[in-house]
Amino acid sequence: MAVSIKADILRAIRESTDYVSGQELCDRYGVSRTAVWKVIKQLQAEGYDIEAVNNRGYMLLSYPDTLSGSELMSRMKTKWAGTKVYFRKETESTNEDAKYLAEEGMDHGSLVVADAQTAGKGRRGRGWESPAGEGIFMSLILRPDFSPNRASMLTLLMAVSVAEVLSNLYQDLKVNIKWPNDVLINEKKVCGILTEMSAEPDFIHHVVTGVGINVNQSSFPEGIADIATSIKLELGERVDRAQIIVGVMEFFEYYFDIFRQRLDVSDFVHIYDSYLINRGREVRVLDPKGEYEGKAEGINDKGELIVRLPDGSVSCVASGEVSVRGIYGYV
Amino acid sequence: MAVSIKADILRAIRESTDYVSGQELCDRYGVSRTAVWKVIKQLQAEGYDIEAVNNRGYMLLSYPDTLSGSELMSRMKTKWAGTKVYFRKETESTNEDAKYLAEEGMDHGSLVVADAQTAGKGRRGRGWESPAGEGIFMSLILRPDFSPNRASMLTLLMAVSVAEVLSNLYQDLKVNIKWPNDVLINEKKVCGILTEMSAEPDFIHHVVTGVGINVNQSSFPEGIADIATSIKLELGERVDRAQIIVGVMEFFEYYFDIFRQRLDVSDFVHIYDSYLINRGREVRVLDPKGEYEGKAEGINDKGELIVRLPDGSVSCVASGEVSVRGIYGYV
Repeated sequence: MAVSIKADILRAIRESTDYVSGQELCDRYGVSRTAVWKVIKQLQAEGYDIEAVNNRGYMLLSYPDTLSGSELMSRMKTKWAGTKVYFRKETESTNEDAKYLAEEGMDHGSLVVADAQTAGKGRRGRGWESPAGEGIFMSLILRPDFSPNRASMLTLLMAVSVAEVLSNLYQDLKVNIKWPNDVLINEKKVCGILTEMSAEPDFIHHVVTGVGINVNQSSFPEGIADIATSIKLELGERVDRAQIIVGVMEFFEYYFDIFRQRLDVSDFVHIYDSYLINRGREVRVLDPKGEYEGKAEGINDKGELIVRLPDGSVSCVASGEVSVRGIYGYV
Repeated sequence: MAVSIKADILRAIRESTDYVSGQELCDRYGVSRTAVWKVIKQLQAEGYDIEAVNNRGYMLLSYPDTLSGSELMSRMKTKWAGTKVYFRKETESTNEDAKYLAEEGMDHGSLVVADAQTAGKGRRGRGWESPAGEGIFMSLILRPDFSPNRASMLTLLMAVSVAEVLSNLYQDLKVNIKWPNDVLINEKKVCGILTEMSAEPDFIHHVVTGVGINVNQSSFPEGIADIATSIKLELGERVDRAQIIVGVMEFFEYYFDIFRQRLDVSDFVHIYDSYLINRGREVRVLDPKGEYEGKAEGINDKGELIVRLPDGSVSCVASGEVSVRGIYGYV
């Protein structure tokens, strides 16, 4: 509640081109003058440059490059995705937090964001580097009413949402997707997505889609530096994390609501393939039954990777690991 | 460890037709005479009638009709299913406990058993009556290496395991399965199965298959009495819950290891269909897109219910609710 009022007031002064009077804020949100004044003081203490002028009101001159629940909620443009933000300065893993909150009944569209993770997770139990202040670590709670076998497609929707935001915001950067769920800049990994679900075989309890984005890192540890990058490293300047988060929520909400109609990715094949780095390249599929190579042609309506084998036949890869020649050390 | 030694000693005196000397128990399990003596005292206090004769040793004359970890573990005949038992006198839900233990890394095949549940769960958030001392409430932790879309078949394997045990132990009772996961005696529900999983879209973290069996209940609340029954009500006498649990683990292990080869239920269609109460009967399918009726013919290799529609066409029902005419008030 407190966070919500704070976000509301911040949104009001952020979106206004003129001063916003204290009385107007009181009337609009049904709170006292003292409450408004306290929120303004808090925001100023957090680094928001808010000018207060007698008889005119408040104006936001600048805002700090820090993440917070109120900062994010005051900037969201969505109907349901990310409208409730649970922000943590530091946590073990936003996916674990989101799974816990989902078990407790948290709404569809609730978003957990952390400034740092101490035990960030990647797919299949791997780790994810999550230094304070430099990355985006967020997990979206979803309660879809479709069958668990559709959940893999949510990963693709999130990948294409991130790719769209990054290529719209930073038009000079070469943004790609490595099937199914890595987003790359200049052929190095900048984003990973981890979708987890709690389900009965024919009924999803909840899905948590976690997103890790390397944003303002200036360097990476040896061994990772060859395959990973950050937006700052590629762009040459720090960027605003909140803007990316807000953008991803906006795209994801739009795509999810379309996806809900057909329950396949037929509406997204074209845009997904336009980012797909695997496309037209030689790939190696690490199938549990045996590795094989071929040329990736794109995805099908189920989100599977279509691979043309040397003998001309086609294999549709539903899951597992796929390497792309020239990417991540597969030469 | 303590439970394991206790179970080992109990198993030794249970399986021996002669007295088992204290020294032999010490040697076999690497514990002191005092430790053996303490375990025997504990077992006697729990109601085990163990005769102790100087210079000959111990003999089990009778055992109590109570569940415990050591009772169950001393009787298991399996290689992995249920060899580790976590017994609780009372818990909220064995599925919740098992999910928690699975998150903590508990082994494939670990079994949670409770004498009573205070918040027993059914499918899709429904409840399950779980009075103390009268039912079987157990949840098996599985860590299969196959894809999440196979998990629904585990429910069918468990249903057929329970049906096999009940029809073998109580040959006068009419045992059936109502697709996908209810086991019936004399056309009333005696067992429900709730399979839950934690997964990535293409990777199962763990599955918990929960089983609730009405065993020694003498009556059911109004409203349930018409549709539910217990083994005791149908058989006319109390039965040994541990024997059922041990039998279900034995069948399930056997069936699971076969299932692992093909990853479909083709090897089980015949036996499953032989129990299927839906077979040849009119059913009503509560499809989210609209209800329809038809005649059930059996299951296919994927475990779907094959329904013949009035126009002669066939619908394969993968999930959702199916009512059977004449069962559970669908007249």
